[in-house]
Amino acid sequence: MSTAGIVVIGNEVLSGQVEEANARYLVRELRALGVQLMRVVVIRDDVDTIAKDVRELSDAYTHVFTSGGVGSTHDDLTLTAIARAFDAPIEPHPVLMGMIERHFGDRANDAVRRMGHLPRGADLLGLDELRFPLVRVRNVYVFPGVPEYLRAKFEWLKPKLADTPFTLKAVYLNVGEDRIAEGLASIDAQYADVAFGSYPRFDTDEYRTKITLESRDPDLVEAALTHLLGELEADWVVRVD
Amino acid sequence: MSTAGIVVIGNEVLSGQVEEANARYLVRELRALGVQLMRVVVIRDDVDTIAKDVRELSDAYTHVFTSGGVGSTHDDLTLTAIARAFDAPIEPHPVLMGMIERHFGDRANDAVRRMGHLPRGADLLGLDELRFPLVRVRNVYVFPGVPEYLRAKFEWLKPKLADTPFTLKAVYLNVGEDRIAEGLASIDAQYADVAFGSYPRFDTDEYRTKITLESRDPDLVEAALTHLLGELEADWVVRVD
Repeated sequence: MSTAGIVVIGNEVLSGQVEEANARYLVRELRALGVQLMRVVVIRDDVDTIAKDVRELSDAYTHVFTSGGVGSTHDDLTLTAIARAFDAPIEPHPVLMGMIERHFGDRANDAVRRMGHLPRGADLLGLDELRFPLVRVRNVYVFPGVPEYLRAKFEWLKPKLADTPFTLKAVYLNVGEDRIAEGLASIDAQYADVAFGSYPRFDTDEYRTKITLESRDPDLVEAALTHLLGELEADWVVRVD
Repeated sequence: MSTAGIVVIGNEVLSGQVEEANARYLVRELRALGVQLMRVVVIRDDVDTIAKDVRELSDAYTHVFTSGGVGSTHDDLTLTAIARAFDAPIEPHPVLMGMIERHFGDRANDAVRRMGHLPRGADLLGLDELRFPLVRVRNVYVFPGVPEYLRAKFEWLKPKLADTPFTLKAVYLNVGEDRIAEGLASIDAQYADVAFGSYPRFDTDEYRTKITLESRDPDLVEAALTHLLGELEADWVVRVD
């Protein structure tokens, strides 16, 4: 089973100057791919902080996705930080530097040439297919913060990440979660490979509690669902889907 | 200057079953209050993980806000984890337990009584004004994950958190950030108490780069803005606001 962590980098996100859209997009995409997202951090433009979070997530999960901090200005520190995370030097990458020189032509200056530096050992993915390649350092995929660029690159990467997808069932009840908490805890204990969630809702008359069941094994989800429905009063159940 | 961290707890957020709305709300509110948000983490329903993140943020920042994991079901682990974070026992709180017994009456069971347990030393805030009180453990404010409940409690808390607000200016340019990166880095280095940001934009003709200047000292922001505008070609500037 593959797992993932997301690191969103940027003071502008924490200060609310820019509405966060990338984690939101990746959450949905990873779910559809069957990759289990374990942790999202949103952090400031600070080399030590970025390095520490990237290293921790890289050690703990199959994939790490970073968003932001890869432009040409003083607050673009992500690649420097990833180099530090892995004790690697950061150095000019001949292929990337060539692309930057061609793109900027006469306007190439030290600031944009800085974007041609990568941690040693970095890979450039999608060179023939993407307008600008996707940078990967070990298991860390380095995405730009601009949502349309992140999405274009992730769309390209997606087929390479697919895992067994999750099967999800939801049971909607017209009673509060206090009524089912004890029974649900007992069923949860019996199905180690099924994740159960319970979510109260107060702003609609449609239902009061939503119980979710989730696993990569569809048969287990069905078995757990049958078990759960057997424990509930029939007139509590609004619908199952 | 007060700082803050946010801990969003819940598998349902990471798996995309529930759209995250609370961090988004708190980001805007903290900005308006002048509280500097340093870090947001979104984590799974796991006691050790919650305890570690809460402890780290509590040690590092003025305020910590948690969201989620405070209901009566098996996945509601936040208060247990906060107790562990501070090596405190978790025990029945007489006032809170009394409220729960009254609220649930005949339907009170072990699951809902678990919600009457708090880490030793926890405070109940807003007892006379809120429908259910806000729990605080040291500098950690414990919010429910249901957005309307979180907001009702935060609205109550807001006036108690206010700090000197930030002054923000933005300069919109019709050139890419590569053109201003070097000059901006130099000005940034001269104004330690002003935060500069640079954000490219590709999906509009209105501008290509937005430069932000931010500080709690309005005079410093004005001085830095004047300095910046003096360094830019006049016909690059689309507008300042």
